[in-house]
Amino acid sequence: MERHFDTELTQLKQQLLKMGALAEAMIDAAVKALVERDAGQLEQIYIQEQEVNALQVSIDEACLRLTALYQPTAGDLRFLLGVSKINTELERLGDQAINICDMVKKLLQEPQLKPLIDIPKMVSIATDMVRDSLNAFVERDVNKAKSVLLLDDQLDDLKDRIVNELIIFMTNDTASVNRAVQLICVARSLERIGDHATNIAEDVIFVVQGKDIRHHMHDL
Amino acid sequence: MERHFDTELTQLKQQLLKMGALAEAMIDAAVKALVERDAGQLEQIYIQEQEVNALQVSIDEACLRLTALYQPTAGDLRFLLGVSKINTELERLGDQAINICDMVKKLLQEPQLKPLIDIPKMVSIATDMVRDSLNAFVERDVNKAKSVLLLDDQLDDLKDRIVNELIIFMTNDTASVNRAVQLICVARSLERIGDHATNIAEDVIFVVQGKDIRHHMHDL
Repeated sequence: MERHFDTELTQLKQQLLKMGALAEAMIDAAVKALVERDAGQLEQIYIQEQEVNALQVSIDEACLRLTALYQPTAGDLRFLLGVSKINTELERLGDQAINICDMVKKLLQEPQLKPLIDIPKMVSIATDMVRDSLNAFVERDVNKAKSVLLLDDQLDDLKDRIVNELIIFMTNDTASVNRAVQLICVARSLERIGDHATNIAEDVIFVVQGKDIRHHMHDL
Repeated sequence: MERHFDTELTQLKQQLLKMGALAEAMIDAAVKALVERDAGQLEQIYIQEQEVNALQVSIDEACLRLTALYQPTAGDLRFLLGVSKINTELERLGDQAINICDMVKKLLQEPQLKPLIDIPKMVSIATDMVRDSLNAFVERDVNKAKSVLLLDDQLDDLKDRIVNELIIFMTNDTASVNRAVQLICVARSLERIGDHATNIAEDVIFVVQGKDIRHHMHDL
């Protein structure tokens, strides 16, 4: 029975990783469509979101079933609560990717606004954070989880810089206002993606150490 | 033992309600400070966020402890998973209230931008949603939870209208760009608050009916 429980936990981890890889691919593809000005690349992303949603329901069901069936305690119980929390974060990542898609669709209806500025760089940091936070969970690697928290500061700084540049841009060229606002929203979605990865990293530390580090970031 | 478990569940509900009332008060106060142009009202909100954060940690600990101690199944287990999920949503509500505070602080450093437009109306709908979703949880009232989902559509429409009006405003008056962008961010934070209340409402339906309605909104 114990071994069967372990097999089920391994399957859960694999499902989470699959969901994470999907979310990451969605985010990448949404911004690639913007950079390459090719709306055709967006359709696949809406299909992938359905897969992410189905995985979310299936993972939550598995968490409930395993908790009821094996009545785990201590570390295993924290692990299952962690899976359930990370599951929610991953579904939200999918939502943010869809938000970006919707904004990219609007942006592609108008001529290109010159400064995509550091948005591709934000994507690169945000998807690194998602991947690292999930790997930290699978590998129970607290140091890797902590490195995600540091990347989040970089991402936030980048977002502030982008917003400030776009505000100056709009002020000098009122014809750009609509597009600049959309781009600001894309940057904010990427910031939110970083927040979700940060939440996952905090969940990892909680699962591994049994220590709740949320709201005590200065203790790191 | 059974009765003691029930008492603990009742205490958990009360803690969730307390957290919800705090989050609601924070959102109200942040926008009131903007309307009345009084930054002094903002300080209390940062203190309240500490309380919300402390409640989150305490509720998560209680969920783990009760699951390990009483090894609940079926309805009680769903209830505890629901509490844990709602707990996360409420903490995010607090985060959004702080986001609004930060933006209001910036807005109060500049002369008032005329159109607060429908932002106070958004606050009214958003805080109704938070209150109704939590009451639905405590009262196990699926119909009340469903009414929250309908309010979310109103909130999203209002946000779209506000963003469009502010874009026109900026285009006609470049001196307003900075403030208009901040106001758009306030509107988006209020939209996010509605999303969190919607998540809570979906969790309520899951807890009460054992039916996962996420991603199947058309079946309602």
